[in-house]
Amino acid sequence: MAVRFTGDYETSYTEGDNRHVLPTDTMKNTVYALAAVELGEPEAFGLTLGRHFLSRNPRLKKVRVAITDHAWRRLTSGDRAHGHAFMRRGPDTRTAIVDSAREDTTVIAGIDDLLILKSAHSAFAGFPRDEYTTLPETRDRLLATSMTATWRYRDAAIDFGSTWYAVRAALLESFAGHDSLSVQHTLYAMAQAVLEAVAEVSEIKLVMPNKHHLPVDLSKFGLENRNEIFVATEEPFGLIEATLARDRSGPRRL
Amino acid sequence: MAVRFTGDYETSYTEGDNRHVLPTDTMKNTVYALAAVELGEPEAFGLTLGRHFLSRNPRLKKVRVAITDHAWRRLTSGDRAHGHAFMRRGPDTRTAIVDSAREDTTVIAGIDDLLILKSAHSAFAGFPRDEYTTLPETRDRLLATSMTATWRYRDAAIDFGSTWYAVRAALLESFAGHDSLSVQHTLYAMAQAVLEAVAEVSEIKLVMPNKHHLPVDLSKFGLENRNEIFVATEEPFGLIEATLARDRSGPRRL
Amino acid sequence: MAVRFTGDYETSYTEGDNRHVLPTDTMKNTVYALAAVELGEPEAFGLTLGRHFLSRNPRLKKVRVAITDHAWRRLTSGDRAHGHAFMRRGPDTRTAIVDSAREDTTVIAGIDDLLILKSAHSAFAGFPRDEYTTLPETRDRLLATSMTATWRYRDAAIDFGSTWYAVRAALLESFAGHDSLSVQHTLYAMAQAVLEAVAEVSEIKLVMPNKHHLPVDLSKFGLENRNEIFVATEEPFGLIEATLARDRSGPRRL
Amino acid sequence: MAVRFTGDYETSYTEGDNRHVLPTDTMKNTVYALAAVELGEPEAFGLTLGRHFLSRNPRLKKVRVAITDHAWRRLTSGDRAHGHAFMRRGPDTRTAIVDSAREDTTVIAGIDDLLILKSAHSAFAGFPRDEYTTLPETRDRLLATSMTATWRYRDAAIDFGSTWYAVRAALLESFAGHDSLSVQHTLYAMAQAVLEAVAEVSEIKLVMPNKHHLPVDLSKFGLENRNEIFVATEEPFGLIEATLARDRSGPRRL
Repeated sequence: MAVRFTGDYETSYTEGDNRHVLPTDTMKNTVYALAAVELGEPEAFGLTLGRHFLSRNPRLKKVRVAITDHAWRRLTSGDRAHGHAFMRRGPDTRTAIVDSAREDTTVIAGIDDLLILKSAHSAFAGFPRDEYTTLPETRDRLLATSMTATWRYRDAAIDFGSTWYAVRAALLESFAGHDSLSVQHTLYAMAQAVLEAVAEVSEIKLVMPNKHHLPVDLSKFGLENRNEIFVATEEPFGLIEATLARDRSGPRRL
Repeated sequence: MAVRFTGDYETSYTEGDNRHVLPTDTMKNTVYALAAVELGEPEAFGLTLGRHFLSRNPRLKKVRVAITDHAWRRLTSGDRAHGHAFMRRGPDTRTAIVDSAREDTTVIAGIDDLLILKSAHSAFAGFPRDEYTTLPETRDRLLATSMTATWRYRDAAIDFGSTWYAVRAALLESFAGHDSLSVQHTLYAMAQAVLEAVAEVSEIKLVMPNKHHLPVDLSKFGLENRNEIFVATEEPFGLIEATLARDRSGPRRL
Repeated sequence: MAVRFTGDYETSYTEGDNRHVLPTDTMKNTVYALAAVELGEPEAFGLTLGRHFLSRNPRLKKVRVAITDHAWRRLTSGDRAHGHAFMRRGPDTRTAIVDSAREDTTVIAGIDDLLILKSAHSAFAGFPRDEYTTLPETRDRLLATSMTATWRYRDAAIDFGSTWYAVRAALLESFAGHDSLSVQHTLYAMAQAVLEAVAEVSEIKLVMPNKHHLPVDLSKFGLENRNEIFVATEEPFGLIEATLARDRSGPRRL
Repeated sequence: MAVRFTGDYETSYTEGDNRHVLPTDTMKNTVYALAAVELGEPEAFGLTLGRHFLSRNPRLKKVRVAITDHAWRRLTSGDRAHGHAFMRRGPDTRTAIVDSAREDTTVIAGIDDLLILKSAHSAFAGFPRDEYTTLPETRDRLLATSMTATWRYRDAAIDFGSTWYAVRAALLESFAGHDSLSVQHTLYAMAQAVLEAVAEVSEIKLVMPNKHHLPVDLSKFGLENRNEIFVATEEPFGLIEATLARDRSGPRRL
């Protein structure tokens, strides 16, 4: 979790005047105390914290509260779910960013580190070639990414839990079903699927690193690679990103 | 994946004689080539690699092949599982270590980074107190760990896949159901549960860091902490480990 | 190193049209080939790459080249420096970011991860107190940070090497000599020192996490802490940042 | 820093009997309290802690104290060193491990993460070739490693500070001056140099990952690579290790 203050704090920098500088330690204590009163969905807790800090700090213009929520699921024994034993469900996490200003509040939700992979229906061909091109065209490659999505909600009075799951389902469904001509192409289809399926989302940004899996050349060992043996390379990798807004007039920075 | 050679390689160190030093690059190529022929369960592939390297390298006395298997599950659409779209299932991974020597083979399987948590039925009390003790006793604490387990199999001719899942189930079931008096206490119960449930396991080692979640003192803010608000601390942490063998005469190093 | 393209690539997203999408693999090869011809200072190499990519890619509007340079120093034997043996000098690294557009080029240099510490002349007091405040005021605390600095150069025809060292010296000198009333206060003094000392810098941004070192309360063990025993905490931490520009009319995003 | 207890703690596992289990939290407090009394060199502090824990815990058979010491150097202004401003000197760290038992104490010192590189006088040739070999022989390669060294001292009554620097100097000097036929070859020369130069060391273990820097094939771009352009690969990498003891009869596990 992170809390970011932006405001009229110039003299704290120029003169070391701390009279309006809320210490990190106090922010931490405030988070604990308000969490004990009412926690709720991460977006709701971000709104609560935003209101609190604005009401207490006259120099504060805008406060950003960013929350990462690690999902846990109950352990089960046959059909029975244990009452107090849990296992982390991951590696993806749920994120929420609430930007609260005096006259304006923006609620952004997201998913971090969703590792997804397509072993078919993924191509990359038709790209420009020059004297530095060595990459072969492919009609059948393995496509893997660790997706980060962030989306802005139309307003702050929606059901944050069920909407988050609806966005996640739309992303996974479109990723699985897409005939991919490139990471860009699939990213666009996924973002569009969210805007079509979830009316509460006014804008969505996807960041998808291309986690390259290169087919190994086995011909020098007298073997054929039937598109089965890949080496996952760390670097270099392509990092593709785009933001889609429902309304051209209204795009804002995500 | 890691391959470790131990053998009569003294002159490569003392004289720079590389005549028997198989390059890392060749090991890598060998892994790719043999994987293309037959991959199978990680333990089986480790056995294949061990036999191959021993047969080719006369100075080699013992080779350890360590494999980490990242689990993926199919994406689903309603009841239908997609044919070629997957999501990482994590954060825990399946590990296999095969030690192959000329006259002896040991197969070790394991789980890394299984994040599990009990929100009740966990206590820590009755410990010694001296002038440096500040920890209060507790009958109701949050117990969380990132478990690493490794276990040795009785022999190398078992069903590695179903046995691995049986061990994992025994670990989770005993963790969930245990009335914990300490991490040590629960660790022992989990290891014992595996030895009781899975006859193929002759020895098991568990390593369980105590991922401390300390209750926050809210009384100074006029609030009560109903065992709900914890701060997860990184350091210091307790790291508890033990090895249980079925047969006292036969414990070996895991 | 990272290369980022921004331009008219809409159809690659909407239609999977790759005719103008330069593959990551080609970018990588281009970097190797151009480095073999002439490498030079990181900023100069970024300019070369920018010109190259703009000249070859008609849809490209802006390309950002970001380079991280790890410093190595020669090993020495008495007074003699070895000709071909080196040790990493760290942990800080030198960074360069070159933004090349059709009509405009911006050269940004920087330092990442400079770990610096003041064991005296650092205070934090006079901050506001409310019901969630537990932090005591202090006139003598340990101040530690892992500084990241980025600064924009007035133009692209300067001596990048000696200027970088001049900025680094100004930052270290002002950090060491400052009577710190807060991280903000020292950060401002450091940025101002750079603008005063190095005419080539038109704007500088500093990011300084407060790597808290909390004095341990030893009184419960009957001991006094003479400001010697601290515990370094990871979280939560304050993250202070600010950008200073020479010319109010000209601030740009760093 | 880590403290590891080994002893008669069986009932804490089998019965949850905590009467002899010193909490992690108490260990932490003890470290702070004893550090306030006298800290000294890391090895000396490890000895102090070992004695303390053995005297207080009757079930304890052996305690290992492992310490990592991050080096800082004073910032300077011209010839003058600042009294209270420091910069981390890295990335290597100094380590100390003290194993204290009732009748026996072992002091081990070490260096972690020393990044060193030779741009000449490094070869790798004459290795065996089979159908999976693709690596070319080379008489002039770049050799880089992140060395970890640990060495055992003859006894516990030596000058730990100056001896540590003497070992470090011997390692760097032999690395720089060696005509390397392989990582193994250089590792052996370095370990031998330490045993020859520093009488206090009875045994030394070196672990040297081969941080491969592969020359890029520029011929396909019509360019020659004059052994200048390398790509640093992360995986796979060779990990070379060996232990040299002064006295064959006395080797112990490091």
